[in-house]
Amino acid sequence: MEFKKTTLDNGLEIIAEINEQALSVAMGVFVRTGARDESDESAGLSQCGEHMTFKSSDRGTAEDVNRELDEIGGVSNAFTSEEETAFYVKVLPELQHRAVELLGDLLRPAFRQEDFDTEKQVVLEEIKMYEDKPPFGIDEKWREYFWRGHPLSRSVLGTRESVGALTPDAMREYFNRRYGSNNIVFAASGKVDFDRLVEQIESARGDWKPVEVFREERRPSGVRETRVIQREKTAFEYAIQAVDGPSLQDDDRYAAGLLSTALGDDVGSRLFWELVDTGRADVASLYSNCYSDAGCFITSLSCRPEAFNSNLSSIRLILDEARRDGVTKEELERARNKILAATALSEESPTSRLFGMGSEWLATGVYRSMEEELAILKRITLDDVNAILERYRFDHPFTIAVGPLESIEV
Amino acid sequence: MEFKKTTLDNGLEIIAEINEQALSVAMGVFVRTGARDESDESAGLSQCGEHMTFKSSDRGTAEDVNRELDEIGGVSNAFTSEEETAFYVKVLPELQHRAVELLGDLLRPAFRQEDFDTEKQVVLEEIKMYEDKPPFGIDEKWREYFWRGHPLSRSVLGTRESVGALTPDAMREYFNRRYGSNNIVFAASGKVDFDRLVEQIESARGDWKPVEVFREERRPSGVRETRVIQREKTAFEYAIQAVDGPSLQDDDRYAAGLLSTALGDDVGSRLFWELVDTGRADVASLYSNCYSDAGCFITSLSCRPEAFNSNLSSIRLILDEARRDGVTKEELERARNKILAATALSEESPTSRLFGMGSEWLATGVYRSMEEELAILKRITLDDVNAILERYRFDHPFTIAVGPLESIEV
Repeated sequence: MEFKKTTLDNGLEIIAEINEQALSVAMGVFVRTGARDESDESAGLSQCGEHMTFKSSDRGTAEDVNRELDEIGGVSNAFTSEEETAFYVKVLPELQHRAVELLGDLLRPAFRQEDFDTEKQVVLEEIKMYEDKPPFGIDEKWREYFWRGHPLSRSVLGTRESVGALTPDAMREYFNRRYGSNNIVFAASGKVDFDRLVEQIESARGDWKPVEVFREERRPSGVRETRVIQREKTAFEYAIQAVDGPSLQDDDRYAAGLLSTALGDDVGSRLFWELVDTGRADVASLYSNCYSDAGCFITSLSCRPEAFNSNLSSIRLILDEARRDGVTKEELERARNKILAATALSEESPTSRLFGMGSEWLATGVYRSMEEELAILKRITLDDVNAILERYRFDHPFTIAVGPLESIEV
Repeated sequence: MEFKKTTLDNGLEIIAEINEQALSVAMGVFVRTGARDESDESAGLSQCGEHMTFKSSDRGTAEDVNRELDEIGGVSNAFTSEEETAFYVKVLPELQHRAVELLGDLLRPAFRQEDFDTEKQVVLEEIKMYEDKPPFGIDEKWREYFWRGHPLSRSVLGTRESVGALTPDAMREYFNRRYGSNNIVFAASGKVDFDRLVEQIESARGDWKPVEVFREERRPSGVRETRVIQREKTAFEYAIQAVDGPSLQDDDRYAAGLLSTALGDDVGSRLFWELVDTGRADVASLYSNCYSDAGCFITSLSCRPEAFNSNLSSIRLILDEARRDGVTKEELERARNKILAATALSEESPTSRLFGMGSEWLATGVYRSMEEELAILKRITLDDVNAILERYRFDHPFTIAVGPLESIEV
């Protein structure tokens, strides 16, 4: 695999990991904008805007966009997160040119009032739906409280009020302000014709202009408090606990990933053996969550209410014990092997390479080949991993619980 | 890609689609057994048994099985359906031998009482969870009523009563009766070393013995009735409608797939443009569901209760109109192109090839290369597709609805 990159005059970056053996080409536009770049009053704007791109472009209707998607076949999708918005298409290599054209169309939504009204309704119903079904929005709510006062606390989905108040004008203004060429990375992976790709984007560069981009960046420190949101008549109690962790900029995030895998991976970890394998909980996991300038460790628990407090106490004991005695060499090797194998297997999927590469470049401006990633993982020692438990404080975490319990024991 | 197959003396079939360019090998054991092979009293037995395989084998504990899985890295999973149970591992090619060994271990569960009690609890909670969250089990309930009296009506998950009554002895008896070598297909895809694979399975063939396999096979005819299950306090109304359709044995299932895609694909279909794109429903789709000796067309609808009856009426109108006037040539070409592209792109994923190939062989004993599948799809005419609307009767479908509505208008 070969890495190529170039930057156009207007600041737009094009990066590609070329694999001549691949049978498809995956391409994505990664925009450095997300919920953190909104205001509280306009929360949900990025995601609503992402939806609008599929409704109609300045060159045609929603039906045209979707017809073009159908005609080139392949797979396409989009997502919005706290700090990025991405649009993605995977096609057979001979259709690269048309797929690039389509991605360009997606970035020029028409924002017609009629489409806007429909899409706003769709998002409002999505919000209602998340509130309505387990785990009842806890996946977003923890950030709201944990990072209170910081832009990362903002909901990607938005609230009924903020989405209800959105207008096509506000959306147009947001697009003009955030979708500048210097705020966008065009990434490609698989059987890429790089020269042709650059030429095509270069010739359409008039569509993208640079903008002055501002993002509030300051490392947040998570609050340590306990929140209980009571909901009667639900069968399970759901909880998330959070403590500060490494960001995408921090070298120790690989060690943090290994530690989380050893202690809290979905299968085969300490939490798994103690709580899930024994049937005491249906979910008990720990993972590390990295943003461009912040990070955290997240513990998730879902179980019957009557087992909740003792499970929470077991999680605390497992983390305390790990901090006191460290994870074992054997645990580290198992965790390492899991991650090495998953990384090696990802070589075969242009899509999974694309997402890793695009998001990482957007946040850090660094590209790492698969070989480099494997080498970093192999170099990490038991001391590196156990140092994580000293560096980040797992005791007295932030805790949020949703379910039938009126109060919990932390 | 090259297809190879062999049958061992004990009846076990080994099939492989070999792609020397692939970077991994995906392997699966497909057992011709599922919910339809249980009794009503033991519903859930197959799935519970599948869970047990990861708990412990006769050669070690659950921890050993999971440690081995971790050590060879890669991805593994299992699933149980109405008519098959499958276990799957994807690894780097040099680990093929160990992965085959692991699959062998999975098929010799120890059924220890202690593991059994735990796993039963897990399944009982899963049942509770499905009842507890949208769409409240409707994905299984429609079969229970639609195919009443036929083995395909049985729930894969089972009921609280049937799972509650399971015993390790019943499970052992079921395994001995259903997991015979002549009821199993071992499938491999990707960079497979076929000779070595056959040799390894051959040398372990003593572990698998042939059995007398019985399955009740008679083509069911779906009932046409309307069921409303009222649930207050849910935000959405969910419905499934079903009519008879082609089975995996029927040649017209490809035309049925094209018709469903044109009329009811998630994106870009008639139902999408009329109901989803306009925000009237969050789900409105039609797909064709094929089993070895039965089949059906399924319409799914999820929307706010106040829009439910008019949406249901729109679905009826769209299907009536299609039947009267047919789908257009352009709609057919778009649907065909979607499926052709998805099929071509699947070449790159040993996993997706494996699942298609294994399930198809298990049900029909037929292998189709990607080229053959593409050729069949290309041959289908507009007349073939529109004949489907005559052959299967979409009017007066079976309907089941779950949600706040007390009654619905069908």
